Amino acid sequence: MFDGATAEPVLGIDPGLSRCGYGVVRRDGHRLVPVAYGVLRTPTDLGLAERLAMLQHDLEELLDDVAPAALAVERILFQVNARTAISVGQASGLALAAAARRGIPVTHYSPNEVKLAVTGYGGAEKAQVQEMVARLCHLDAPPSPPDAADALALAICHLWAAPAERRAADAEGRAGGGGGGGLARAVAAALAREEGSR
Amino acid sequence: MFDGATAEPVLGIDPGLSRCGYGVVRRDGHRLVPVAYGVLRTPTDLGLAERLAMLQHDLEELLDDVAPAALAVERILFQVNARTAISVGQASGLALAAAARRGIPVTHYSPNEVKLAVTGYGGAEKAQVQEMVARLCHLDAPPSPPDAADALALAICHLWAAPAERRAADAEGRAGGGGGGGLARAVAAALAREEGSR
Repeated sequence: MFDGATAEPVLGIDPGLSRCGYGVVRRDGHRLVPVAYGVLRTPTDLGLAERLAMLQHDLEELLDDVAPAALAVERILFQVNARTAISVGQASGLALAAAARRGIPVTHYSPNEVKLAVTGYGGAEKAQVQEMVARLCHLDAPPSPPDAADALALAICHLWAAPAERRAADAEGRAGGGGGGGLARAVAAALAREEGSR
Repeated sequence: MFDGATAEPVLGIDPGLSRCGYGVVRRDGHRLVPVAYGVLRTPTDLGLAERLAMLQHDLEELLDDVAPAALAVERILFQVNARTAISVGQASGLALAAAARRGIPVTHYSPNEVKLAVTGYGGAEKAQVQEMVARLCHLDAPPSPPDAADALALAICHLWAAPAERRAADAEGRAGGGGGGGLARAVAAALAREEGSR
């Protein structure tokens, strides 16, 4: 089980140029503690280069303030249209470069991986994810705007994914069982602990 | 006509993660002078975030060394596939943000605008553009790799586009003639001057 020590925070980023969601979560024993969350915005009446410079400045400030142990970023799906892909690509590139220059490791998670980690079900609705984020982070209501909730979900996904994958690998090694359920089992176990500790 | 003074250089960037072309051109009277050109590369065996950090570092160094008066960047077309759009978006975002943070104005040009500026024909083949870049920059052969030639073409496009557009506007104002030919006329005039000065 956990050693109960306060771990370094994980920063989740839901990249975007108009609204870039961020969520910082650390683990305190079994508890998930939301350290900070919100949205970085750039004014739409500025030029593209100026907006990117502003977002870059804000992201760098965030990384320096939070000093996260890891950055979790949403994997951009190739199914989106090219216009969205360019814009999200520009925003995500700034976050990735800023993290790498600070020696902060970056992990990408697909939307389905995040849903699976947070709700135990990869096909969960957005509202379910937001409700579970609120519950897991002990917030009275789903964080608003939704971009902030998505970023918190990414951070939670990262906090749980690595140990869950190790446990899943262990379980497979012992029982030869099918993979893929490791994360879901970890979520269920964590929720049971959350319920029990109230 | 021109005053013959040596103008500040224009930096053209053809953004990409594996190969990011750059070309620096200044105008010395009627002559176009290629100051520097080449390609910034990032090793494909590094992680994405590390590659973006490396590209960002190299772009910032380039901007600080060259201190261009303007940055000309290729407009990413929405027709490309999403995978390309994400990657080019990530690279271009770094260039745009770095320029804006240094107060360097950024202008985007479509591939057709660049072809029109350099060859006088918006539907020109890539090889024609490269040959014209070599001719206009007094190079013995088209610059290699092609990404460098594309970046030089962007810089040339920017050096010619603004005054050509002013001349075109003047011509339209006087004669009420159709627009769009201004750039082509400027290219033809510049080439005639080039030929005459040899």
